[in-house]
Amino acid sequence: MTANVIDGHAIASKLKQEVINGLGSVEKSGLVPGLATISVGANYSAKAYERRIRRVADECGVECQQVILDVETSEAELLSVVADLNAENSVHGIVILRPLPPHIDEAKIFTALSPLKDIEAVHPENAGRLALGNPRYVPSTAAAAFHVLDEWLVAQGEDVSTFYRKSLIVVVGRSNNVGKPAVSLGLVRQASVESIDEWASKSGQLGWHTRRADILISAAGVPDLIRAEHVKEGAIVLDIGINPKLDPDTGIVRMVGDVDFSGVSMRARAVTPVPGGIGPVTDIWLIKNTIIAFSLARESVNSSIGKS
Amino acid sequence: MTANVIDGHAIASKLKQEVINGLGSVEKSGLVPGLATISVGANYSAKAYERRIRRVADECGVECQQVILDVETSEAELLSVVADLNAENSVHGIVILRPLPPHIDEAKIFTALSPLKDIEAVHPENAGRLALGNPRYVPSTAAAAFHVLDEWLVAQGEDVSTFYRKSLIVVVGRSNNVGKPAVSLGLVRQASVESIDEWASKSGQLGWHTRRADILISAAGVPDLIRAEHVKEGAIVLDIGINPKLDPDTGIVRMVGDVDFSGVSMRARAVTPVPGGIGPVTDIWLIKNTIIAFSLARESVNSSIGKS
Repeated sequence: MTANVIDGHAIASKLKQEVINGLGSVEKSGLVPGLATISVGANYSAKAYERRIRRVADECGVECQQVILDVETSEAELLSVVADLNAENSVHGIVILRPLPPHIDEAKIFTALSPLKDIEAVHPENAGRLALGNPRYVPSTAAAAFHVLDEWLVAQGEDVSTFYRKSLIVVVGRSNNVGKPAVSLGLVRQASVESIDEWASKSGQLGWHTRRADILISAAGVPDLIRAEHVKEGAIVLDIGINPKLDPDTGIVRMVGDVDFSGVSMRARAVTPVPGGIGPVTDIWLIKNTIIAFSLARESVNSSIGKS
Repeated sequence: MTANVIDGHAIASKLKQEVINGLGSVEKSGLVPGLATISVGANYSAKAYERRIRRVADECGVECQQVILDVETSEAELLSVVADLNAENSVHGIVILRPLPPHIDEAKIFTALSPLKDIEAVHPENAGRLALGNPRYVPSTAAAAFHVLDEWLVAQGEDVSTFYRKSLIVVVGRSNNVGKPAVSLGLVRQASVESIDEWASKSGQLGWHTRRADILISAAGVPDLIRAEHVKEGAIVLDIGINPKLDPDTGIVRMVGDVDFSGVSMRARAVTPVPGGIGPVTDIWLIKNTIIAFSLARESVNSSIGKS
C-alpha cells in the first residue's frame, strides 16, 4: 500500500475562503477583528509561527498586533502586557507564543488572560469547557488535525461518525496545548482514544501501542519518532510535530515532523506531510477563533447596551 | 490465580483518621468546616449518597446542610439556591447531587457555583485545572479510585511511579464526573491511558480493549459489564459502578458494580468489591475536599484583612 498524501494546503485554502466569507458578514459593523500575539525571547519555532500568523492575518484582513518582548522580561512586566491587551477594545484574541522563558510561570500568565480573548483555550476555564465537551474555543493545532481528518474522511466517502465510533485513536504526546486537546476532540467524536507519552517509548513499548491505532496522531516533538514499524497497515497518520532541524552541511534549518514520511507512507492509508499538512490549517484556525472572539465581544457589548 | 480483594473500608478508615487529624488543626480557629448538598427529586442513588454524606460528615465533625428540592423545582429556583450557598460563610463546599431533572441545564448550574466551593470540580475552571494537571480539587470518585490503587500498590511493595509508567490503564465510561477525571489522574501518573465507552461494547470490541489493561477501571454504570473474559490474567480491576438492582423475589434493592466479581476475581491480581471498595473512600474524600475548601476560604479572608 502506498499512502494518500493528505494535502493540508488544499484544506486550508477552503477553510480560508470560509473564514473570509464569515469575516465579510461580521465586518458589516464597520469594526475589524483584531488578534494580538506576545512572544518573549527569540525561540526559532516561536518566531517562525509569529511570522506565519502575521501573514495569514494580513491575507484574511484581520488586524494583527505583535508584542515582541526581550527574553529578560519579568513575569510582572508580562502580566502587565496581558492586562493591557485584555483591556484593549480593538484586540479580540490573544495568543501567547510558547515557549516562555523558564523564569516565567506559564500557568500564572495563562490564568491572567481574559477568558473571552483566550482563543487558544489555555486559561483553565476554557481548557475545562473543552474537557467537559462544551468548548468556547477549540485550540488551533488539535482543531486543525481533526478538521483535516474530518474533511479527508468525507472526501473518501466515509460515514464519518460511524468511522470514529469504530476507531481507536492513539495520541502520542500529551502537552496541555496539543496532545490533551486532541484526546478531548477524539472523545467528542466517540472514538476509543489512547494517550501515550515518552514512557511508552523509553520502555520499548511504543509500537505495541501505536500499531493498534486506526488513527495515529503524533504530537511528541521528536523527529523520526514514528517509523513504518510503528504503524498498522492501512492506518491514517497525522503528523503534528514541527521540529527545527539543522542540516550540518548547508547550515539551513528546516522544519520536520515526528513521522518518517517515506517509510510510513508505504504502510499507511493516508499521511499528512510536514510542512504542508496540519500547519497551514492551524494558522487559519487561529483566524477563525479570532472572528469567534470578535463576535462574542460584540454580543457582550450589545447585551450591556441592552441592559443600560 | 485468585485475586486479592482490595479492602476499601480499611483504606477509608485510615484516610478518615488523617482527615480527622487534619480537621483538629484547622478547627483551632474556632470555626467548623461546612458542607452543603443539593438534591432535586428523589433518585434512588442520589438519596442513598445524600444519606452517606450526612453520616460521614457527622462522624468527622463537619457541619452538613442538606437542601432537598422537589423534582418540579425550576432552573431559576435552583440557581437562586446556589447563589445563597455561594454567599453563605458557614458553607465551604457545595455538592450538587446527580442526576438533575431533564428540564434543568446541568452545565448552567455547575457554572454558577463559586469555584472555591466547587469541591467536586464540576465548574469549568476547576475541570480545566484538573485537565491541565494542576487541580484545586480532585473530584471524589476518581480520586478515591486512584487513592485505593496508590495505597494498595504501596502495601504490595511496588515502586509506584515505575509501576504506573509501565502500565496501560483502560477506563470504561467517560462521564464528566468520573470517567474523564480518572483519565486525567492516570495521565498525571504518566501511565498510558485509554478511554473507551459504550461504542466499544456495541461493536463487540470491549474485550479487545480491556484485555490489554494492566489496570482496568470501570465507570460505565452497567451491571455485570466486565466479566472474566474481558480481563487480562494478573490485571488490577477497580469497579466504580454503583448500580441499584432490584431483587424481584424479595423486592429489596441492592447496589451492584459493573464487574462480575466472582468470575473476574479468578483472573485478576486484585479487584475492588461493590459495596466496600471505592465507595467508602469516595465519601471520606468529599470531607477531605471540604476541609481544603475551608482552608482556602480562610486564606482568602486573611488576605483581604491583610489588604485593608
